[in-house]
Parts: sequence; structure tokens; C-alpha cells
Amino acid sequence: MYLQLSTWQEVDAYLEQSKAVLIPIGSTEQHGPNGFVGTDALCPEIMARGVEEATGCLVAPTLSIGMAQHHLGFSGSITLRPTTLIAVVCDVVNSLAKHGFERFYFLNGHGGNVATVTAAFSELYAEASLGKADPDRPALRCRLKNWWENEAVQRISRQRFGAAEGGHATCSEVSLTFYGYPQHQKNAAMSPEIAPTGPIYDSSDFRKRYPDGRMGSNPSLASAEVGKELFDGAVPALAADFRAFADAP
Amino acid sequence: MYLQLSTWQEVDAYLEQSKAVLIPIGSTEQHGPNGFVGTDALCPEIMARGVEEATGCLVAPTLSIGMAQHHLGFSGSITLRPTTLIAVVCDVVNSLAKHGFERFYFLNGHGGNVATVTAAFSELYAEASLGKADPDRPALRCRLKNWWENEAVQRISRQRFGAAEGGHATCSEVSLTFYGYPQHQKNAAMSPEIAPTGPIYDSSDFRKRYPDGRMGSNPSLASAEVGKELFDGAVPALAADFRAFADAP
Amino acid sequence: MYLQLSTWQEVDAYLEQSKAVLIPIGSTEQHGPNGFVGTDALCPEIMARGVEEATGCLVAPTLSIGMAQHHLGFSGSITLRPTTLIAVVCDVVNSLAKHGFERFYFLNGHGGNVATVTAAFSELYAEASLGKADPDRPALRCRLKNWWENEAVQRISRQRFGAAEGGHATCSEVSLTFYGYPQHQKNAAMSPEIAPTGPIYDSSDFRKRYPDGRMGSNPSLASAEVGKELFDGAVPALAADFRAFADAP
Amino acid sequence: MYLQLSTWQEVDAYLEQSKAVLIPIGSTEQHGPNGFVGTDALCPEIMARGVEEATGCLVAPTLSIGMAQHHLGFSGSITLRPTTLIAVVCDVVNSLAKHGFERFYFLNGHGGNVATVTAAFSELYAEASLGKADPDRPALRCRLKNWWENEAVQRISRQRFGAAEGGHATCSEVSLTFYGYPQHQKNAAMSPEIAPTGPIYDSSDFRKRYPDGRMGSNPSLASAEVGKELFDGAVPALAADFRAFADAP
Amino acid sequence: MYLQLSTWQEVDAYLEQSKAVLIPIGSTEQHGPNGFVGTDALCPEIMARGVEEATGCLVAPTLSIGMAQHHLGFSGSITLRPTTLIAVVCDVVNSLAKHGFERFYFLNGHGGNVATVTAAFSELYAEASLGKADPDRPALRCRLKNWWENEAVQRISRQRFGAAEGGHATCSEVSLTFYGYPQHQKNAAMSPEIAPTGPIYDSSDFRKRYPDGRMGSNPSLASAEVGKELFDGAVPALAADFRAFADAP
Amino acid sequence: MYLQLSTWQEVDAYLEQSKAVLIPIGSTEQHGPNGFVGTDALCPEIMARGVEEATGCLVAPTLSIGMAQHHLGFSGSITLRPTTLIAVVCDVVNSLAKHGFERFYFLNGHGGNVATVTAAFSELYAEASLGKADPDRPALRCRLKNWWENEAVQRISRQRFGAAEGGHATCSEVSLTFYGYPQHQKNAAMSPEIAPTGPIYDSSDFRKRYPDGRMGSNPSLASAEVGKELFDGAVPALAADFRAFADAP
Repeated sequence: MYLQLSTWQEVDAYLEQSKAVLIPIGSTEQHGPNGFVGTDALCPEIMARGVEEATGCLVAPTLSIGMAQHHLGFSGSITLRPTTLIAVVCDVVNSLAKHGFERFYFLNGHGGNVATVTAAFSELYAEASLGKADPDRPALRCRLKNWWENEAVQRISRQRFGAAEGGHATCSEVSLTFYGYPQHQKNAAMSPEIAPTGPIYDSSDFRKRYPDGRMGSNPSLASAEVGKELFDGAVPALAADFRAFADAP
Repeated sequence: MYLQLSTWQEVDAYLEQSKAVLIPIGSTEQHGPNGFVGTDALCPEIMARGVEEATGCLVAPTLSIGMAQHHLGFSGSITLRPTTLIAVVCDVVNSLAKHGFERFYFLNGHGGNVATVTAAFSELYAEASLGKADPDRPALRCRLKNWWENEAVQRISRQRFGAAEGGHATCSEVSLTFYGYPQHQKNAAMSPEIAPTGPIYDSSDFRKRYPDGRMGSNPSLASAEVGKELFDGAVPALAADFRAFADAP
Repeated sequence: MYLQLSTWQEVDAYLEQSKAVLIPIGSTEQHGPNGFVGTDALCPEIMARGVEEATGCLVAPTLSIGMAQHHLGFSGSITLRPTTLIAVVCDVVNSLAKHGFERFYFLNGHGGNVATVTAAFSELYAEASLGKADPDRPALRCRLKNWWENEAVQRISRQRFGAAEGGHATCSEVSLTFYGYPQHQKNAAMSPEIAPTGPIYDSSDFRKRYPDGRMGSNPSLASAEVGKELFDGAVPALAADFRAFADAP
Repeated sequence: MYLQLSTWQEVDAYLEQSKAVLIPIGSTEQHGPNGFVGTDALCPEIMARGVEEATGCLVAPTLSIGMAQHHLGFSGSITLRPTTLIAVVCDVVNSLAKHGFERFYFLNGHGGNVATVTAAFSELYAEASLGKADPDRPALRCRLKNWWENEAVQRISRQRFGAAEGGHATCSEVSLTFYGYPQHQKNAAMSPEIAPTGPIYDSSDFRKRYPDGRMGSNPSLASAEVGKELFDGAVPALAADFRAFADAP
Repeated sequence: MYLQLSTWQEVDAYLEQSKAVLIPIGSTEQHGPNGFVGTDALCPEIMARGVEEATGCLVAPTLSIGMAQHHLGFSGSITLRPTTLIAVVCDVVNSLAKHGFERFYFLNGHGGNVATVTAAFSELYAEASLGKADPDRPALRCRLKNWWENEAVQRISRQRFGAAEGGHATCSEVSLTFYGYPQHQKNAAMSPEIAPTGPIYDSSDFRKRYPDGRMGSNPSLASAEVGKELFDGAVPALAADFRAFADAP
Repeated sequence: MYLQLSTWQEVDAYLEQSKAVLIPIGSTEQHGPNGFVGTDALCPEIMARGVEEATGCLVAPTLSIGMAQHHLGFSGSITLRPTTLIAVVCDVVNSLAKHGFERFYFLNGHGGNVATVTAAFSELYAEASLGKADPDRPALRCRLKNWWENEAVQRISRQRFGAAEGGHATCSEVSLTFYGYPQHQKNAAMSPEIAPTGPIYDSSDFRKRYPDGRMGSNPSLASAEVGKELFDGAVPALAADFRAFADAP
């Protein structure tokens, strides 16, 4: 069930059986020579479709823009400052909590979001802990889950790409988007084959360290076929994780 | 050209011919008994596809969540507080300006966004006017355009729906989403046929005044056919408006 | 009744008969070669005197500084950033609501305030809609009314100034301040007679487009006589509008 | 010279001879049984007229609303939160600095503003000290001056009112407003004659400690005559202080 | 009793006998040629030890970083912007108020904190006054006390240092830290013997006026012996002041 | 070298040989029946002493209050909201960067700080990436290092405490503070011996899940002896990590 394609009466009916909602969250940022700028938003959106089919959960619209300050040296990258993203997450959760939602499952596609979204959860909880939230409101629970954090994705990635998987513009994420948007697949030579690795500071430092935007990966190995494998492997794990979160006492 | 499906090198190439970008912006809020919660985000997204086809412009990911505090009495509605939405718009524009974009065309689907997004433009300009922006950056220009503000939409709406068009959950916007998502069309009886009209204050006042969420409309008249008419009529006007903004000296 | 010249006991007595307050809001910004920097604050203040005489309403002190970032290229102009003005409006309304005021009528003198003040109202309402306001507080209602939005002003302006009325440093607003402050009238030659028109972006762009600060007007036609006409014409309309807002069920 | 009644060209001319501006700042808050709610804004505004006549300085519009949270238990009182007032002061100064003003003399009428306005100055200076201000901008200097801080006012107050002067709703400030607005003078019996004294915390505590709003004063002794004395005594001192600040190397 | 070295059960037990807590607050900023960067944090921390011994009060961890923007021209100086420090003070007090603390005694070591911390108290109180705090929470009371504001310190300083005491990097504060950290005493020639005096604006202006960081002082006169005198003299006064605040009805 | 006990001239001298500074950061929050409220601040402070001795690095004052909203159900716990802590970290780093520091090593004692401090680093970098930082400033590098993240601590903890180590109020951290403050060691019976484990949401949920404040640990096993082992084991690893960060090209 997709929030964007439902009426408010249908949401009311959903709330009678579940207080949990799935919110895909990603980023809009460069993903190297053959990855889409939208990779990190498209991946959790694709996975969310599988989870929705498996569980019937309500899927909110994707939060497509995340914390990507380090990518601003490459055209097309967009960032929210961490404090902006915290405000967005708080407003979204507080809005849905008004209707009776209590459990907020953020299916994440971008490592760079983890710290900020986790901080946003604390900002939210702190409203209650400091006595600023409606005292009659049930306690809220939020969870951030990266789509690649499950045995299936780890295994397939290792088998298919090994050391070429990398850390940004990974073979797996590019594969998943090629599976989702096969008509938009790109070809690009990679030089060097495997990109360098290292730390992340600001965007001009990032561009110097990683001239074509990749970190540690060779996404020319990506394919829609492996993307399908990843999808088929990950969805049951993510669906189970969602259910466990939604149903926990 | 869609930002989410492009590489950063493709965005670089685009920038050599244009400094303008189209950003659909909407809202996630109740739209009465047969309108989608996502109506106001889906409408500019649908129109953006037409404009993209007509002009080849770069389309950023849709900002799906807007200022909808007055709808929070109905399940599924999500709002950003105005100050949050201002921060989001500023961050998005400042990010894209880093790459050389200078003209930002927000194609809007939600009347409730107009004031806040316009205020956000002033917040952005004020950075330059108060000497807080990089003095070497070219002056930025932003434009908010409602998809229904053109002769074609006004005419078709008048012809097809007359006084039943209304002000929220309008026949036109519901029609356009039925055209975009025909398999998700809803049927719902409307009682009274035409919803009441009046002012907007907070969400509990709104729910009292407009018990099923509509304002002044009878969207049971909506249809995918009229949605197509609206699309075919509006796209040339919106494309021309975009071009005029992008090309103005 | 003027808040600044009343005691708190007199305000208490007022509250027994009315929950509505009139708040003049303007701007401090250049108004071309013969207009006062304070034009946009003085105009609603002048009109407020008429409305007070007609209705006995409580008039708060004028908020003299508004959102005027685009005028910062001209000496004397002062702006609040939109986020600052939002905070001001929220604090003013929340303070007065503490005493039992429920209806807040902002009589506005500056087009550049409209978006931001409207966004501020939504920020205020959102506190209630998101459950952050005292649940025992009655619902608040705010209204922004431009002093020139009534049939009388439109008619007189058309008759007296026609196409020379313009959009900034208008003949009407300059006339009204000349009526209010006749001893301070200025003479200045206008070249060209009628100023150019166009869009508004940041302050350096504004100064380039509108070198003497006027937009589309020839305020050398302004006079205290027409100012009196405007005052006499507008006050009954504004008083009626205030009463309707104050008394609406 | 009054900013509100000047043109931008006149301000330009002023800047050729002085970089200093006088900004009256006050508060809108209860002042006991016979004091105006606007006392703290009217007093510096009245004094500013004298200083303007003596020095020809440019006088900005009065910032009528200050930090008055402790008075919110009495009808008509309005507060800006300290963080809001800091934003206002920063925006006002940064705007005027854009035009070349370098020295900002805040003539203050409200003890409750002192801490917050002083903090605002530090917030402003910190922009430069932390490297966030335009490095080409001359260093700014701000000064907060309470109108009663001079030998003349202290002497007259002591002679005329002695121990009845008090700390809030003082005989002197009420006298000064009676001098400025003689037709609005109020009579009210005071019981007890001299109000209690003590500390200041939040507004409900304040109302309990000071039931009619006065602190330590018996403003039934106030008169327009003493108001004139205070004005005549203070203006030369304040004018000298302004000149010293404006002319300091 | 020191919060950092207590368990939460011990804090619970303390709350049964007292609702007051002592919070040392200082600054991290240059203190001239022989003063520690931490002088303003170490002084109230040293004095707090004496007050704790005298009263058994609970001592919170020292807030070591304050508002010191004007010192940023000298290496090692750290500032919080005033708005940041306000947020810190509000969070600290709101946290402790959750547990039942009602009286917050800030023992201060830095003149530059006074305005901002006082503004922070108003920000806190304003939450209650504007109806944003939990209505069931008892009214909070905050007090800022400078360690040098008592007869003993004034007398000893006058006797020992006279006109050489100065305003920043004073003989007294340097003495007190030498008493507290005798093994870290520094020797440094002062030239001129007594530093200049004057106003405070931003950090580059400050460095120009006060080239070695001192204001009006000759701290080469400082000694651990006088530091002990100051400690012995001030502690009884501060302890009495704390008790009076804690026990006031 | 300790910033608090140095003069600004000594800091200047330090900067000639190193651009790196160590900043201990912790939290003030309950640590179960026998752990100090200050455990998470004291641990990195103790470790910092060892690193200072080994490397001669400059140690800033400990940031003693962190993000601990979930502990507010237990007396003595203090939290900064995440947005406040972000502001603090940004101000501290921006202040020190003014003097020429470029590398900021936060030695952390609290798991609950990790997300927020990491987000703060991104907020800082984003200033540069979005063009809001001084373009002449060298790129900044920040690192958050938990004191327990090294082989020695992991090994000793496993050997000494095994499954009783736990996740909050761990045997290791309590041991380290007992080593640092042996005279303040507490005895307390633990019931159950090993505390429950689970997720973290807001503070009332936390108190329900973890009634005495521990998570998964049995800190009655803690001892000053093991604390010394941990200190001796960890310091060389942390010193090496600091040097590697400081010296990286």
C-alpha cells in the first residue's frame, strides 16, 4: 500500500491493523561514471516495492535528498545540511504520529545518512524525554535499516564482485538500479579499474581523493542480472526485519 | 533528462548548454474521498514529464512533502513546518548553484506551498543581499509556477467542471492523477455533492469545516480523460514558461 | 484604543468585549526619489488610525521592519530575513494569545511581507496541528490584509494615476504618506517619468533593473490631496473587513 | 533626521558625513496601574527626538517590542524570545552595515533588554571573529545606552521621588511618557503605596510577587512636569554620549 | 557532592533534601602573558570546591566553554556563539528540572558570559511564560553569580593590587589559578606594566587595542598566596549566597 | 600540554609544530548502581592524560555533556539535544580553526554521541562544501575515536568480564573510572546479576526496560586494577591513532 496512491480513509483503515510505516530514504549525489545520481534513493525505493508486496506495509514517499555534502564537488549532487535533515525527519515523524503511527521504519540507501538520521531519532525522542511532546502520545520507535545489511546482499556481493564491490558507487547498488531501470543502463570505462579508498572530509578534498567519484569499486562489473539477484535475496530479509520491528511488543 | 537517472558527467554536459533546472514540488496530504494523498506531488511530476519531453530540461527529484499543516486532522497527511521547508529549498538551491546552475524553476502542485516557497526564495536572495553568499557566485533566480496557472487548465476546468471544480481536492487535480495512475482510480460517493468553502486556519478547525477533506469541489466528476486533456493543454504552456525563464537575459 | 497608550487593566477590559487585535505591519526600505523610507510602515499605521476611530479596535504597535532584502542596494533599507520575521510574528501572536486574544488582524503595507507573514501564520498554526501548543488554548485565527486591497483604493488609484501608479513607490502609497506627513513632502524629478517593470531577485539585481528604486510608477504625481481621498475611501472598507473578521463565528 | 521620513538619497548624503545611527529600542509590556503598556518604547523614542534635535543624527524606527517574558501574566504584554530578539538586532545591523553604517547606538528604554541586546552584539561580532562576515567590511561597533543612565536623571529622580522611584513602572518613566503624551495621563490609586521588590523569574511567579505589576515604585507621584525636567536634563547627556560614540577614533 | 562522581541513586537521595544545584561556568580564552587559557573556568571550579565543602551542595560538571568571541584573535581561545550558549544552558537546566531540581546556581568566572547566560535564563523562563513548558513543572529559578562579586574579593584585590587589578587577565583571577595549580605558574614580563583599557568589539579590534591580551591589569603581581587569601575570603560569602538562594521561600 | 593550563603564547608555539588537537568528549548520565554519572566524560579524560604524556599533544577541555536523552529517566542525567551538540562542536572547531588548527581528534567516551558528533562533522564540512566557509581556510579534518575501540581494551574486557561486560555501565568503563578516582569507588549489589539488553528509544521506555540503568552488564565485577590494565593497554593504541591522524598527508 502506497501512501501517495491511497486516500485518507484507506490510511485510517490501515491504522486499525498496523501502527508501522516504511519510509524509503536516500540521497541525490554522484555515483561515478556509470551510476545514477539517484542511486541511493532508487535502491531503497526498489526494495520497498518488494517489502510492500511481501508484507502489505504502508510505504511513504521516498525522501530523495539526504546528507551528501562530500559529493558537492560533482555536478548534480544535492545535500541537506545535517540540521535540515534532522528537521525534516522530525516533521515527517511528528506528522504521522498525529494520526496514530508509532513505528517508523526508514529503509535507507545512503551510508552518509546514517549518522544524521540516527541523530534525528534522538532529537525526536528528546522531545518526549525533555517533556516537550504531548504526554498522551504513545512512545515512538524509529529504526534505520540499510538495504544492504543482510546476509543475502553480503553474500551475493562477495560472490559476484569480491574486492571490486567498493564503498561508494558500489557494484551492488549500481546493479540494483540497472535492474530497476534497465533502459537507462550506462557504459563507462573505469580508470583505474578499482577506485582508491580513504577517508571522507569536505567536498573539495573528496574530489581530489576520488577523481571520478567512486570509492574502492569497479562498477563496470554491475549488471541488471545481479541486481535481480540482490532484490530477490534481500527482500525476504528486509520484509522479516520490518515485520519484527512492527510486531515487537 | 532526469537527474536521478543521469551521471554527474551527463549533468556536466547539460550545464554547458543550460543553467536552468526544473524541480517539481508538491505535498503529501489528504485529498478527500477519492483523491490520492500524493495528488499534489504527482501532478507536477506528471506535468514535468511533459515539459521534459518538450524542452529537454533537467528534472530534479520531486520534493514530495510540502507545507500542509492544515491537513493534519486527516490520516496520512504530512507537513514540513514552514521554517523546515525554507531550509530544504535553500539547501537544494545552494547545492545546485555550487555546480553552476543559476535558474531554479519550481513546478508546484500545492497552493499551501506558495507562501513558504516564496519566502524561501527571499531567504536565499537575502544571503546575497546581506553579503553572506560567495560574492563570485552569479545572481540566482528562482521561480515558483503552479501547474494550473495557465489558460488551458483554467478553460478546461471551467468547461468540464464549472462550479464543482473547487479549491481543494479539485476535479482537475484528481483527474490529472487518474490520468497518470489509471489503475488506482477510486470511486467514492460525495456528500454533500459540492463541499463547503471557507478559510484555512489550523488542522482541527479545518477538519470541522471540511469533514471529508474537500473544499468546494465535487471530485466524483474527475476522470482520466479530462486528466489527459489537462495534460495536453498545460504542457505547451508550461514548457513555454520554462523556456522563457531559462532564456531571459 | 492604542496598546502603547493603555494600561494592562484597560486591555483586560477590552478583552471582555473583543478577542481581536489590529497589528499594523510594514517595512523600512527605499521608496524611490520622493518616497519615504518608512512608507510601507507609515501607510498601515495611518490607515489603522482610521480603523480605530471607526471600530474602537485595539491597535498594537506597528511592526516597522519587514522582509525587504531586495531593497538592500539602496541606503536606509533594512530587512529581516524571512526566518526572523516568522519568529517575530509567532512571538507576537503567542504573547497576545496568552492574554486571551484569538484573532490577529495584520494590516499590511508591504507586498514583500505577504509570503513571509503568510508562512508565519502556518508556522503558528502548525504548533497546534502538530500538538506543540497548549491544548486548552482556543484556536487562533490570523489575517493579513493589504491596505490597498479594496475597491476604493483601486478606483481612486486608477482615476488619479492610471498606468503611472506602478508597483513599487506607487503614487498611492506616496500620496498617503504625504497626507499623513505633509510637512515632509519631497519634490524630485523622475527620469524616466515612468519607471521600468520586471521581476524581483536579489538586491544587486534589483538596483540594476530599477536604478532609482521605483518599479513602474511616477510618484511625482503623488499628493496629499489624493492621500486624503485614499484614506477616506479605504477606511470604511478596512473597518468593515476588520469587523467581519473579528465577529465571524 | 528620521529614517522613516527620509529618502534613500538623503540617507546617502547623511552617510557622507556620519557612519553612526541611533536606534531606539524598547518593550511593550504592562507598567502598573497608571503606566502605558508602551512606556519602555515611548521613553527612548521621546529622548531620541531630543538627541536628534541636538545632534542631527539619523534616527531609525523604534524597535517597540523587546524581551518581556516576565510580564506575560498581564494583559497586553508582548515578548520576543531572546533568540528572536538577537536575530532581529543582527538583521537590522547587518542591513544598515550594507550601506556603510559602522556605529550603532541603541537608545534603550527597558532593563529587560540589556542582557539580550548585549548578547546580540556578541552574536554580530562573532560573525566577524569566526570569519563569517565579509572580510572587507569595516569593523562594526554597537552600544546600548539606557536613557536613565546619566547624572541628570538620577538626580531628578532622587529629588522628586526618592525611595518611591522603584524598579519597574518607575515614577521617572511614567513621568516621561506623561510629558510626551499628556492627553493620555491616567489616574490610579496605588495599594500599597510603594510596591514590593524582589527577583524576577517567569511570568506567573512575577504576577504573584507583584500583583499590580509595579516593582518598588509609587508612580502616582509621576507628572508631566517632572517628565519635562527629565527630558531637559537627560537630552544633553545623551547627545554628548552619542557624539562621543560616533566620533571615537 | 560532585555529580560526576555520584550515582543516580545518590542524586535521588540528594533531591530529598535539596532542589538546588551549583553549576560552575567559565570560558576558554587567552588571559595574557602569564594567565592560563582556562582561567575563567578554573576559578569558579576552585571556588565551587570550597562552597561544596561548606554546604554539601551538589556540583555539576563545569561548563568550560563560554562566550569569548572577542578573544579569538589569540591562539587557544574558543567561543560558543551566544545562541549556542543559550541552547546549552536551556538543555542543561531542562534536563536537571526533569529530575526535580528547581534552583540553578551558576557560579560564573567570565564577565563575557553574563549577558548571554542572563538571556538564556529568560529564554528558559519564556518557555513557561509562553505556555511551552510542562504546566505541572514547578517554576524554575536561575541565578548567575560571579565569584568576585563579594566584599572579600573586592577588598583583597584593592589592598593587594590597587589600580593594577585591571579588567581582563586580572591579578585576582591569575592569583586564584596559581593557588589552584601552583605547579603551572608562569613568569612573564609585562610591557607596559599596566595594560590599556577601553571598549570591546570584535576580535581583530580587540587584538589591536590589547596586543598581549590584558586589559588594564598587571598580572605579574599575581601570586598563589593572594590566591589563597581570595579563596578563603570568598568561599564563606559564596556559600552564604548559595544557601540563601537554595532556601529562599 | 593542556590548553586550560597554557598561555596563548604557548599555544602559538605548539602550532608551529602541530596543527592537531585532542578534544575529550563525554556525557553526564546515570551509569547504574555503582557507576559515576560522569563515567563517559571521565574515561576519555583519563585516557587523554595518557595520550598527552605519550605524544605531547594539546588537550582541550573535556566536553562533559553529550547526547544522553535516553537516560533522562534517572536523576542526574543531562542531555544536549542533538542540534545543540552539533552547534557546540561546530563552534569549538571553528574557533580553533581560526588559530590555525586543522585536525580535530575527538576522544569519545559515550556511544550515544557517535551519531550526533559525526553529523556535526558533516555540518562543519558542509559549510566549506556549500561555500559558506572562508575560502582561504585549509580543509579541516575531524575524527571521532571511542577509547574502547582498540585491540587491548577488547581483549582485556573479554578476558576479565566476558559476557558480563555489557553495553551500558560496562565493567570496563566503571573499572577505568575506579582506577582514575579510587577513593570514590562504590559498592552496590546487582539484581539481576547481568542486566537485560535491548533497543533504545526515549527515556521513559529506557527506564522501563532497564530499571537500574544498566544494559547487559554486571559492573560489580569492575575494579581499579582492571582499570589500570585498560589504561596501560589502550594508551599506546590511542596515542598511535592520534599520531597517525595528526601526521597523515
